[in-house]
Amino acid sequence: MEFFFYPSSVAVFGSFKKGAIAYEILKNIMEGGFEGEVIPINPKGGEVEVANIRLKVEKKLEKNVDIAIIAIPAKLVPSLIDEIGDKIKGAVVISAGFSEVGNIALENELIEKAKEKGVRIIGPNCAGIFGVHANFFGSFEVRVKKGGLALVSQSGAFGGAALAMGNEEGIGFSAFVSYGNAADLTESDFLRYFADDKNTKVIALYIEGVKDGRKFIEALKYATSKKPVIILKAGKSKSGSKAAQSHTGSLAGSYEIYRAAFHQFNAIEVEEMEELFDAAKTFEMYKNGGKRIAIITNSGGPGVLATDKAEKLDLEIAKLSEKTINALREFLPPQCSVKNPVDLIADADYERYKKTIEIICEDDNVDSILVICVPPIFIPSEEIAKAIIDAKCDKPVIVNFMAGDLVKEGIKLLDRHGFKNFLTPERAVRALKWLSMRKGFINQEKS
Amino acid sequence: MEFFFYPSSVAVFGSFKKGAIAYEILKNIMEGGFEGEVIPINPKGGEVEVANIRLKVEKKLEKNVDIAIIAIPAKLVPSLIDEIGDKIKGAVVISAGFSEVGNIALENELIEKAKEKGVRIIGPNCAGIFGVHANFFGSFEVRVKKGGLALVSQSGAFGGAALAMGNEEGIGFSAFVSYGNAADLTESDFLRYFADDKNTKVIALYIEGVKDGRKFIEALKYATSKKPVIILKAGKSKSGSKAAQSHTGSLAGSYEIYRAAFHQFNAIEVEEMEELFDAAKTFEMYKNGGKRIAIITNSGGPGVLATDKAEKLDLEIAKLSEKTINALREFLPPQCSVKNPVDLIADADYERYKKTIEIICEDDNVDSILVICVPPIFIPSEEIAKAIIDAKCDKPVIVNFMAGDLVKEGIKLLDRHGFKNFLTPERAVRALKWLSMRKGFINQEKS
Repeated sequence: MEFFFYPSSVAVFGSFKKGAIAYEILKNIMEGGFEGEVIPINPKGGEVEVANIRLKVEKKLEKNVDIAIIAIPAKLVPSLIDEIGDKIKGAVVISAGFSEVGNIALENELIEKAKEKGVRIIGPNCAGIFGVHANFFGSFEVRVKKGGLALVSQSGAFGGAALAMGNEEGIGFSAFVSYGNAADLTESDFLRYFADDKNTKVIALYIEGVKDGRKFIEALKYATSKKPVIILKAGKSKSGSKAAQSHTGSLAGSYEIYRAAFHQFNAIEVEEMEELFDAAKTFEMYKNGGKRIAIITNSGGPGVLATDKAEKLDLEIAKLSEKTINALREFLPPQCSVKNPVDLIADADYERYKKTIEIICEDDNVDSILVICVPPIFIPSEEIAKAIIDAKCDKPVIVNFMAGDLVKEGIKLLDRHGFKNFLTPERAVRALKWLSMRKGFINQEKS
Repeated sequence: MEFFFYPSSVAVFGSFKKGAIAYEILKNIMEGGFEGEVIPINPKGGEVEVANIRLKVEKKLEKNVDIAIIAIPAKLVPSLIDEIGDKIKGAVVISAGFSEVGNIALENELIEKAKEKGVRIIGPNCAGIFGVHANFFGSFEVRVKKGGLALVSQSGAFGGAALAMGNEEGIGFSAFVSYGNAADLTESDFLRYFADDKNTKVIALYIEGVKDGRKFIEALKYATSKKPVIILKAGKSKSGSKAAQSHTGSLAGSYEIYRAAFHQFNAIEVEEMEELFDAAKTFEMYKNGGKRIAIITNSGGPGVLATDKAEKLDLEIAKLSEKTINALREFLPPQCSVKNPVDLIADADYERYKKTIEIICEDDNVDSILVICVPPIFIPSEEIAKAIIDAKCDKPVIVNFMAGDLVKEGIKLLDRHGFKNFLTPERAVRALKWLSMRKGFINQEKS
């Protein structure tokens, strides 16, 4: 499947009038800096200008290319596949008007033609694909920065919104697939493929239903054994399941069965769209963690909120060892609380944070650490950020800096050193929970 | 208590060296544009420059003022109150070192002196207060814009972080109180006061524990009868309750009792810090709503996610009337789904959104409406924003525009017309849930 995400040549079929889908895709490919060959194709020929480059529009595909991206009227797609099938390895069919509107015969015809020619199909009725590390943006959706997240979405619009949100959250992507009707390649195929893709650290999956339950379970088992798989399952409720059926035609199936499978294979099921990115951020940093957490804070209230959330999520507030407590008591001011959550109080500075993190990190009762900081006006947030960066600790450290202009510089500094900030204590605790769910991995390595 | 939040004159006691607490408070008051009299006071006298204004530092308070803000060593506070008590109505005691570190005798002494002099006390050990509509920023925390939210926080640092988050969420505030040890005035007093404050539309309360349970229940009953009260209760879990005890010395008490009270009086209890602002946004727009919601979307996936969340939160996906369904079918393209959630599909434009909102708004089975929009590249988000603004509808309309640069202009336009955007479908549904919890109000007025 590599030719889809690392293609060396691409043909785009459709209308190249401004605003037309094929035009927008071509524009995205050219503006994204794709270095392979790109051939726009339309029976009318002519020229098209995108990204300050004038391209000749070919009337037919004359040479072999890796993939075709097809945005022409649905009824013409099967015969196009028949015509160009010998010259391509795969096709991404953007065109809508197949099984999703009841046109099952047309979809079957498309698949038959593709099979005859040995062509693999993504779609139809999809938003396209990105192979980000090949600078290949074969979709009209917003481009994203390079990174480790492969986003696989049954819903094109969800995918588009998620890419845009990912950009705002500073997430790096390895790939994006909107697979639409999944007439040929399905969620299971993508799970397996990205499990082995070297640029993908984490897979995120939005599904309403799956094509083949058994195949999905096998693929999930394989993928989760290789890397974290984050899943947002829509259509869980009775009304949601009905809505899914009228959306993607998915029989969402019994949610209980899905949930059991997610649980069995340590997949990270998230409840809400926002959590998908928090989870992606988490696993961009760490592979896993344990249940026994320590909380270090300079402000009691957020520490209490974090503690409440941890207990609700079935994490343990680690019981610090005598040795740790004594070591903390030795250097911390007497007003500080040396019980977990450890409260360094408002004037906590570089030294106090750094030393506390290091002492607690040594404690065998602690699996991972949450560091909360509400910077008081008199201590720059960069100083606390530096303490976190400099602290020698081989356990996961999740950071919650709150909030506003006062912490912007600190958050930037953390980000440059691979620490993603979580916006609230509760969201940070959820990150620790997800790490603990990847219990299949024993070592707590920084990934 | 009005003299605290709408003072005409203020004395600030403490050190006016750069970075000192009294200096920072004075600076905030002057930069915030307070028009009353401000007198910095320190036994050493001298001058201080803040906000490009040079002020004389008085050695003593010579004249009557409404309030004193006190940031001097704790042990000197009682005698200061004794000295100036006849010249002030109230004092905000920022100084720490009282009951929160076990110094109960000193706190009792402070309160005795205050009672003798008829002076009301906020604090000690607090972060100060804002009376935003009087341009009075009597705290070192970040200033905020005028609006309807009164934030009452037991934790000063939580309050500070919350103000900063509120700024980022575009929330307008009427007031802020960090009440610290609550030696005199407590959460109950502030609840009652803001219930009657004309500039306060919504009260948000962060509490770990309360001073007097019976008084709190009475105050909650009163305040919730006047306006929405949002509560973030920390110290709910066993470990959280212990952490609260070492933080504010609060006996967090049985959460079950709190929950029962919140429920009885239709208080809006939120689970996480982030929800506090979503709830504040919600009630800045509407007073209440019903349980039967309609979802209008241009993208199936987010519609399914919203449906799942609605069912989970015990809302009802309204059953649209025959009349509504027929009216929708008449003008919507056949690919659209006219069942709830109503899917207007990707190319939905101004007309399609506006007419659909108006038709659904007329349906007696519908209490409130969620409008979701994932703008496709070929339709500007302002167009959809305009449709929502122009649609004639007297029921609550909650908006979820997703995401990124494509929707920035649309969100700005909505905001200018009083529609706050919610970032994800799930967060938007939660807003509808909160509206439905204010069932004590029958009319669904735009507030």
